[in-house]
Amino acid sequence: MSSIFGKLFTVSTWGESHGEAIGAVVDGCPAGLEISEEYIQIFLDRRRPGQSALTTQRKEGDAVKILSGVFEGKTTGTPISLIIKNTDQHSADYEQIKDWYRPGHADEVYDSKYGFRDYRGGGRSSARETATRVAAGSIARKFLNEKCGTEFTAIVCGEIETAIETARKNNDSIGGIINLTIKNPPKNLGEPVFDRTEALLAMAMMSIPATKGFEIGEGFNAAKMLGSEHNKLGENHAGGVYGGITSGEDIFCRIAFKPTPSISKPQRAKNKNGEIGEISIKGRHDPCVALRAPVIVESMAALVLMDLWLCQSK
Amino acid sequence: MSSIFGKLFTVSTWGESHGEAIGAVVDGCPAGLEISEEYIQIFLDRRRPGQSALTTQRKEGDAVKILSGVFEGKTTGTPISLIIKNTDQHSADYEQIKDWYRPGHADEVYDSKYGFRDYRGGGRSSARETATRVAAGSIARKFLNEKCGTEFTAIVCGEIETAIETARKNNDSIGGIINLTIKNPPKNLGEPVFDRTEALLAMAMMSIPATKGFEIGEGFNAAKMLGSEHNKLGENHAGGVYGGITSGEDIFCRIAFKPTPSISKPQRAKNKNGEIGEISIKGRHDPCVALRAPVIVESMAALVLMDLWLCQSK
Amino acid sequence: MSSIFGKLFTVSTWGESHGEAIGAVVDGCPAGLEISEEYIQIFLDRRRPGQSALTTQRKEGDAVKILSGVFEGKTTGTPISLIIKNTDQHSADYEQIKDWYRPGHADEVYDSKYGFRDYRGGGRSSARETATRVAAGSIARKFLNEKCGTEFTAIVCGEIETAIETARKNNDSIGGIINLTIKNPPKNLGEPVFDRTEALLAMAMMSIPATKGFEIGEGFNAAKMLGSEHNKLGENHAGGVYGGITSGEDIFCRIAFKPTPSISKPQRAKNKNGEIGEISIKGRHDPCVALRAPVIVESMAALVLMDLWLCQSK
Amino acid sequence: MSSIFGKLFTVSTWGESHGEAIGAVVDGCPAGLEISEEYIQIFLDRRRPGQSALTTQRKEGDAVKILSGVFEGKTTGTPISLIIKNTDQHSADYEQIKDWYRPGHADEVYDSKYGFRDYRGGGRSSARETATRVAAGSIARKFLNEKCGTEFTAIVCGEIETAIETARKNNDSIGGIINLTIKNPPKNLGEPVFDRTEALLAMAMMSIPATKGFEIGEGFNAAKMLGSEHNKLGENHAGGVYGGITSGEDIFCRIAFKPTPSISKPQRAKNKNGEIGEISIKGRHDPCVALRAPVIVESMAALVLMDLWLCQSK
Repeated sequence: MSSIFGKLFTVSTWGESHGEAIGAVVDGCPAGLEISEEYIQIFLDRRRPGQSALTTQRKEGDAVKILSGVFEGKTTGTPISLIIKNTDQHSADYEQIKDWYRPGHADEVYDSKYGFRDYRGGGRSSARETATRVAAGSIARKFLNEKCGTEFTAIVCGEIETAIETARKNNDSIGGIINLTIKNPPKNLGEPVFDRTEALLAMAMMSIPATKGFEIGEGFNAAKMLGSEHNKLGENHAGGVYGGITSGEDIFCRIAFKPTPSISKPQRAKNKNGEIGEISIKGRHDPCVALRAPVIVESMAALVLMDLWLCQSK
Repeated sequence: MSSIFGKLFTVSTWGESHGEAIGAVVDGCPAGLEISEEYIQIFLDRRRPGQSALTTQRKEGDAVKILSGVFEGKTTGTPISLIIKNTDQHSADYEQIKDWYRPGHADEVYDSKYGFRDYRGGGRSSARETATRVAAGSIARKFLNEKCGTEFTAIVCGEIETAIETARKNNDSIGGIINLTIKNPPKNLGEPVFDRTEALLAMAMMSIPATKGFEIGEGFNAAKMLGSEHNKLGENHAGGVYGGITSGEDIFCRIAFKPTPSISKPQRAKNKNGEIGEISIKGRHDPCVALRAPVIVESMAALVLMDLWLCQSK
Repeated sequence: MSSIFGKLFTVSTWGESHGEAIGAVVDGCPAGLEISEEYIQIFLDRRRPGQSALTTQRKEGDAVKILSGVFEGKTTGTPISLIIKNTDQHSADYEQIKDWYRPGHADEVYDSKYGFRDYRGGGRSSARETATRVAAGSIARKFLNEKCGTEFTAIVCGEIETAIETARKNNDSIGGIINLTIKNPPKNLGEPVFDRTEALLAMAMMSIPATKGFEIGEGFNAAKMLGSEHNKLGENHAGGVYGGITSGEDIFCRIAFKPTPSISKPQRAKNKNGEIGEISIKGRHDPCVALRAPVIVESMAALVLMDLWLCQSK
Repeated sequence: MSSIFGKLFTVSTWGESHGEAIGAVVDGCPAGLEISEEYIQIFLDRRRPGQSALTTQRKEGDAVKILSGVFEGKTTGTPISLIIKNTDQHSADYEQIKDWYRPGHADEVYDSKYGFRDYRGGGRSSARETATRVAAGSIARKFLNEKCGTEFTAIVCGEIETAIETARKNNDSIGGIINLTIKNPPKNLGEPVFDRTEALLAMAMMSIPATKGFEIGEGFNAAKMLGSEHNKLGENHAGGVYGGITSGEDIFCRIAFKPTPSISKPQRAKNKNGEIGEISIKGRHDPCVALRAPVIVESMAALVLMDLWLCQSK
């Protein structure tokens, strides 16, 4: 189920960057939650490009529309269909490199896996798809916030503005790290073996395009710690999970993003015939994908906890 | 489904460290694969404690028995039931601390989630459970090796023997990092959105007890790289996956383990009544859980690729 | 997953009878299948009301639109989003009985389960939802037909036109039976225990609104047969499945539909306060739901076989 | 997932009729339920053959053992592993017909699907496998009974003793029908679209070996009824479900079983080479499988309602 996430709170996303629209179907949301297009839009606007000098100048309108599952302003317990029209597509940017496999992109594996591909943008692997996760996640976070006071906050880690500016000037790109804090998570979520909270969070984060690493609590730093340090009562080195189960303490995660693969700096590439050449990728691309990623990270975390909350037996 | 892993190649594990036995049911294995108890035992023996001065002196016999699904030495396509009897349990070690929550363990969250718990060992969160993953994984890796030549190799990263020896002498423990290499993975596995190969590998690894971090390819290092570096043709910085799909190139992962939480060094702990005291955990525990983890990491990786292989549409 | 069907070929449906639109997301369809709106429309038109004197006079336009997953006329292997706008809604018909629970409908259980409900039409339990199953099923049947020559044919059983005409004149309704024949089904589909072909077909059929019974092969008649009769070679009394697995012989099923619950004949009903009164349901309702059901039955059967086809290991 | 049933209360069964043992792993049972081997045995004894002149004289010991998931007499919330040793196997009975496909059995499709088969008994399609469903179901019914007062009662329908006696004398077999009544089912269970209660009950029943038909409420009789009759308040013609959701009223189902395919009366059969011959099946077989089926039917119904109970959102 490539495009379906969750067991009881399921999100089924669809749509390509250069099609008519993208969307998500959210199934399993309890009835009675107040939801509006205006509310969801707040989170989509945080993800939207074109907001600062450091992000792409594409103007993805990203106006969401609710097509089902809400009656008189409240969820009815039935599937909530969310749709976002695609606008401002520059498909022509892709025409000239349609026979080339963009380095660092999934172009070549797509051709291999499916036999052919929609060469306009990254298809389903495009960052555009993440808008639908944000829309779906906004419902989950509202529920958890009202029910348990849970708050999701992700920020780009460190001072990286100068590095981004330099990369952009060189027609290049750079990676980044996101820090996620979940305050007041519900306790007792997660299961002791495969469906551990940290395993599901890792899966959720590593399903975001361009992610390459995940940590919870002390993460890789834990490898160098002594048991007597890591165990210390009240210091929450574990990051809020024990044996896969949430303790109710704050959850801390870090997620690593690779540099945006689309750069206009000329680079060596392969084409369909296996020939090597040099290409320069035109178009309006973020020099650092991490900048717009915090709301995506928060949304995926909300989807994980929401699903676990529904699974937690009575 | 706390204890079930996979969609088409499913592994359902059961058993506590201090019960009569532990086991796994492997469903979905294609018919005709040669499997024997002796073959599976090779991998269990790699995980078994008591093999070096640096691992616990417990002697988990770990002798596996196949109860179903194999006829005349070959899999029949029906569920393969694997059972490993528990022996050499020292439940008495746990009696004296049964009202205390061992720091860094899941004791407290278990009591909170389930209302009570089997205080002998870590229950389902015990490292003992991982023996069943190794048994199940040995079937998956054999299939992939015969079909595609795939090889899974995990090793403990760096020189850590001195650090372990020091920790042990101080009645303490230390963490560690495992490097995983998958040679000749099948290509075209994984799906572009949620069921990305790296997302499923992350979930699988982060479901192993004591894991705190996961990286693929350059991992966190990718955050500091330029797009023009990371993209370079033929350098496989991505670690064998693009947009979630395997390219057939080698896959590289790193997994961080926290220090063993069970240490005999006295430490502050909470009990059921919320009182704080000092406890010392007796018993035979590994000073570094990472030492025995390579075969577990390889096994989980094999389960992920096997399941994706079956899911890959014809 | 209330509104998601299938494991590898998944269909996620959404939408209420009186909302803006209904739709389905089809995930897992192999790449390269030629699909067009015109093709899908053929099947939707067979389900559409208003085609004969014996069906409702509502004019559900049912014009389908493909929003994603198809590029240059062929499926790309990514989710196919299908949308059908709702038109010709007479919500006012429902205003006057909004506090009454229509007998034979899910109104009362909806209020009990969800706390409130969209009183306009049957919500998700409305027959309107089945249009999305037909749209999704048309893709599955095309694939199976091209790949294996499979043909799905359902017909209303027996001569029931007079009975329907009589029921309509009396402002009443009547049930019916559908016979389904699947010619050239793929062989070796289905699994021996829970995921038997007949079990999945039964589930699929009994998930169609108003169904009350399912038979395969001889069905209830088998209860009266002798083993020596039922076993006879070449007579296919089993209906094409043995131990849950398809033999490649034709599959025969029968599905029973109850009478349409919406009738304008006055009947006793309960309201929200538990009071009993008499109501007459206005609006344009089919006197026999079975008449429009054949294409729905065929579609659900196609979804079952398609999913099993993808699950059948290589 | 051929051998896994349920979403939150999952049952994973394993084992062949002629292997060393059969068993089930029950995952997702809430903690704190009192369960013992003696309790489960009561239900296994109802299924056990050899109890009357009308059932097979095989003596399947069917003594269940709990290997995990229960501590001090109560479930711990972790997987419950149940094992039943196979005894009294007469594998020699099968040696002489091992190249012949028994008519009405899955022998031929097994060979086709898997490439080869364990010719001793019916493998996973054997009725022996149902013992594990009964063991698992006994846990579900205890939970539902204590929580909601739910009672499951299945009986063989009609007077069929004479017919069975006649069939047996003629070395033949006969089919039968089981009536199932569920008293005090939890209300609000089931989902309005695919996961309807009646759809899941149909799937569960049609996954029992030898079943050919399923009805709920009026079943096929509903096809002949008028809406005004079927709707009548207080008469429960629907059988306790509306739009897929339980109303709390009693649930009524009927399940049709075909005649036992194994008969000693000589019959025409095919062999591996496609030749036609005559075989007589030796061994100790039930002349009517329905006689021992009531407890299996009750168990599967309990598994369905238990899973829906856990899925029902809070």
